[in-house]
This record gives sequence, structure tokens and C-alpha cells, in this order.
Amino acid sequence: MTIRIGILGYGNLGKGVEYAVRQNDDMTLAAVFTRRDPASVKIMTEGVPVYSVNDAPAHASEIDVLILCGGSANDLPVQTPEFAKYFNVIDSFDTHAKIPQHFENVDKAAKASGKVGIISIGWDPGLFSLMRMYGNAVLPEGSDYTFWGKGVSQGHSDAIRRVKGVKNGKQYTIPVESALERVRNGENPVLTTREKHTRECFVVPEEGADLAQIEKDIKEMPNYFADYDTTVHFITEEELLRDHSGIPHGGFVIRTGKTGENSSNNHVIEFSLKLDSNPEFTSSVIIAFARAAYRLNKEGACGCKTIFDIPPAYLCRQSGDELRAHML
Amino acid sequence: MTIRIGILGYGNLGKGVEYAVRQNDDMTLAAVFTRRDPASVKIMTEGVPVYSVNDAPAHASEIDVLILCGGSANDLPVQTPEFAKYFNVIDSFDTHAKIPQHFENVDKAAKASGKVGIISIGWDPGLFSLMRMYGNAVLPEGSDYTFWGKGVSQGHSDAIRRVKGVKNGKQYTIPVESALERVRNGENPVLTTREKHTRECFVVPEEGADLAQIEKDIKEMPNYFADYDTTVHFITEEELLRDHSGIPHGGFVIRTGKTGENSSNNHVIEFSLKLDSNPEFTSSVIIAFARAAYRLNKEGACGCKTIFDIPPAYLCRQSGDELRAHML
Repeated sequence: MTIRIGILGYGNLGKGVEYAVRQNDDMTLAAVFTRRDPASVKIMTEGVPVYSVNDAPAHASEIDVLILCGGSANDLPVQTPEFAKYFNVIDSFDTHAKIPQHFENVDKAAKASGKVGIISIGWDPGLFSLMRMYGNAVLPEGSDYTFWGKGVSQGHSDAIRRVKGVKNGKQYTIPVESALERVRNGENPVLTTREKHTRECFVVPEEGADLAQIEKDIKEMPNYFADYDTTVHFITEEELLRDHSGIPHGGFVIRTGKTGENSSNNHVIEFSLKLDSNPEFTSSVIIAFARAAYRLNKEGACGCKTIFDIPPAYLCRQSGDELRAHML
Repeated sequence: MTIRIGILGYGNLGKGVEYAVRQNDDMTLAAVFTRRDPASVKIMTEGVPVYSVNDAPAHASEIDVLILCGGSANDLPVQTPEFAKYFNVIDSFDTHAKIPQHFENVDKAAKASGKVGIISIGWDPGLFSLMRMYGNAVLPEGSDYTFWGKGVSQGHSDAIRRVKGVKNGKQYTIPVESALERVRNGENPVLTTREKHTRECFVVPEEGADLAQIEKDIKEMPNYFADYDTTVHFITEEELLRDHSGIPHGGFVIRTGKTGENSSNNHVIEFSLKLDSNPEFTSSVIIAFARAAYRLNKEGACGCKTIFDIPPAYLCRQSGDELRAHML
């Protein structure tokens, strides 16, 4: 049984899904849908058609699970409920505050169509959410900590590039090692924003730009940098391309908690990711959940699900017997 | 709605369950069952009855989930299928090779009775199994590594105490830091037993014992120590009690994998535990899955389940709405 995957939106995430499908021999890429002129989109997999997004519903019978690879700000709030009318869908919606509303919208559409929609899949939200949940379930008397990085923040890199005199730039979010250590030692520290992460910026200035002013504008930028210890490095465009063209990321979810008589025993649960490519890893998580969406729908399930609702075994190619024999 | 918990077997694990129930305000301890004379067993929670294990079936209507706290070698293979005839049950069966057979036995009994039996719950098997599974599902091209420790191995401590001239002793399993680093760096090393863990023994000799002989007997003991770099420290009984009476444990599950064009991007998923009390943490995991057993059975589910089969949300007191709003 081969699961036929569709990709909607062919950017970094869509390409990542295309790579991930190749690593899973129970899946095949069936089609890519784009808002651009389909003739202008060249994909890596030979023989797979590229269609206009407008024609997607007409191809519903050719796709088992459609992966929505658009952005959370404008694309997914509209696309996920819309395409749940025709397809089992997965998205990586990551605007945490708007998840409840998004869930409602997708749930309504997917229940009406009899399809499964799994939202907010990736690593945060995604695997990190799952770790926060398991940690809380297992150690009810405890504290949660999430650190991000070292990794590229797209939003902060965009913010740098909007500064006057900046030609190009990249920003890394870096967890503060000493704060991590305090958490791991079970000190249960209350950490300010500044104490948890630092921000490191690599900036290509325009010719003749006022470097001191650029540095000041970045470091004092409210919301983005003012609350952090920020370092600014000026480099050439060449150096930026050579040393900073990757999209690494990662982070840490730590739950510390106490048990026993007088809560005298400490426990630390730590989950961490170190990722060379944020979009490729996110795609890999999504593809595992595409398998779950397919299976759940085959069993008759419909409506919106999150990572909290999916029995772990549904992500795996292996049978229950195989999982119990080899992974338990 | 209060979930009424029963404990069968009142050793370290049973006591841990008793502590864990106190941390979960949707649960209450309803009864303890023992193979000893019930009058001789003094528990911590006032007003809770202690019954003979033989009377357990007569109390089935008073218990929502029975936690089986016996040993994997002799107790659980018999007890879990037996008590699944009357109760929803959870055990921490940890003989990996015999899990498929145990699953079959419990499944048959629980399906006949309409109860839910969740087996092999704890951290390994348990949370570590889950991490191995998620890691494999997300990164199909990769390698798995499990390291244990630093922690007390009960089996190895028992082995030390059987050596001639040894009065008492404790053994710690310690992961080799340099091996961990190689794995984290994505080197995908092939590691021998000796390269992964060292063993450290604290031994109280009998008066006049031949220390050199004891050290030799321990270090050359097949299966237990011969394949490891082992250190033996001789200490007094006083020192053993003062410095080594805890039951700490922990470990690391690491999945490394590659994605993308030419598999050029590396990813590392790491999960680790640092536990002051192995039995209390195991009990805390069990209690979260007791909640899941209760809910699944209320919904009409029956039969044997493992950690792979349980939707994560079933472990939590919070509703789906609350989980999505606060943890996703």
C-alpha cells in the first residue's frame, strides 16, 4: 500500500517534504500544487506533475494526504480549512496564540468532509509540545523550560534587513549555557528573557553606511532585540553566503520535578534537537504524521487532530508486533 | 471524577505509586494488596485498607486501575494476565525479549474481561521506547543509541554481593562521556559494550577477606563485568549507607539521521533522564498511564496496550482545549 503525497507550496518546506518522501518507501509523491505558473516550477522528482493550486480539488482522488507548506501568517489560516474539504491535510501552523481558532476551523471543515486534518506539526509546535506534555503528565510538581537555538530566526533576520544601511543579514538565537546548566541542576530558576537567550547578528552593510548607527538601531529595536544581549558582526556579502547560508536550528525542552517524601527527590527530563536544516527536519516530522493521517482516515476517523491526539504507533511503517519486538 | 488506584505489591515501586497518587488530585489510593500478612504492612496513607492479594478479586468494584508492582522475572508474567481478568492493570514488565509473549497473554485475558492492560510502562521500557520510536519515525535514515546511567544497577549490585568475601556492595553503570560526544557529533560510531559504559563498584568486604581476590572475581565475572572497564572501591558499611543508599538512575536515547540532497544535513534528537529515584520516577510514569487506562476503558476499549498505542493526551488531566491552548 503506497501513500500518495501531495505538496501545496513549493518553497523550503515543500522541497523538504519532497526529500522526506524519498526516505519512506511506503510513500510516493503524487503531485505538487503551486500558486505560481506551474510551467515555471521545476521540481526534483521526475515524472511528477505540477498543477495550479486552483486545480487541486479536481485531483483529490489522486492524493491520500496533502501537505500544506505555506506560511502561518496568511496562508494556512485560509488554506488548511479550505483544502480539508477535499483532502486529508497536514500543516505546520505555528502561531501559538491562534491555534485554538485554527483548530476549530479545520475541525469543522474536516468533519463535514470526512477527512483528517492534523495541524501544527513540526518541532515547535510539534515534538517540543509533545515533550512539554509528557513532562507535565509524568512530573506534575515541576517546572517547564524551553530554550531555542542555536539557530537562524527568520523573523529576526528579516528585521535586521529592514534596518537603514543594511544590505543583508542573518540572526542566530543562542541559548545561554549557564542558564541551561542551572535548569539541569534542578535549581528551578526564574529566568528573564535576557537570561535565557542571546542574539548574534551577521550584517552586510551597504557601502558607506554608518556602522555605529546600524549597530545601535539593531540593539535597541523593541520586541526583537532590546530585551536581549545582542552582538552585531559586520561581514561581507561573500562571507555571509559562504558561512551563513544554512538554516540550522534546534533547542531544548526541560522538565524538572520532584517526587517522594517531602518532595526530596529531583528528576530532570531533557529533550533536545540539533538540526542542520530546520525546514528539512520539519518536513520529516510532517511526513511521519502524514502516515498517521492516512491510517486514521482509513479507519474512519475525521476532524482536526494535533500531535497530542495521535497514538505514536501510527507514525511508523512497522506493525505493532514489530514495534513491540524491536523498539519497546 | 476520581480515579481509584489499587497497588499490588508494596515494595519500592509500590511506595513510589503511593507518593505519585498524592501528586495527582484526580486520583485516590483505594487499597493496597500484599502477599505478606496484611496486618504486618504499614502504609503511609491513613485510612486506606491493606488486603491479602488473595482477596483482590472481591474488591474489583472498588478499584479503577490496579498497579502491579512485582518483579518481571517471576511475578508479572503470572500476575498481569491473572488480574486483567478483574481489573484494568498497568505493569512495568521489563524483560525485553519476553514482551511479545507477555503482550499476548495479557491481551487474551483483558479482551475476555473487557478490561485494559497496559504493559511495560516506566522509562526503559517506557519513555525511552517512545523516544526510539519517534526518532525512527521522523528520521528513517539514521542510527539509534541508548546509554544508561549514571545509575544503580540492581542486578549488578546483587552479583557483587554474591562474591566470596563481600559483605555488601553497590554498582553504578556510567555512560562513557567521549562515546556520547561522538554520537552527538553525528559520527555514527559503532561502539562496543566496553566503549559505551563503565562500571563502578563500591564494596564492603567481610573482615579479613582477600581484597585482591574480590577485585579479580568481580572484574572477571562473565556477562556482568568481564566486558566492561570496571573499577572496584573498598569502603566501610558506614560509608556505603551514608553515600550510596539512594537509587538514582537515568540515561540517554539519541537518534541521529540525515536528510536532504545527498543526505548532506545531519540531525540529532536527544532525550535524557537524570533521576534521583528510579522507582519513584517509574511510578510517576505508571500513574500517568493509569489515567490513560481508565479513560480508554471508559470509552469501551479493552485488551493489551503498550506505550506506542496510547494517544498522548490521555495521560493528562487537562482537556484537549486546555492542552492546545497552553502546551502546543
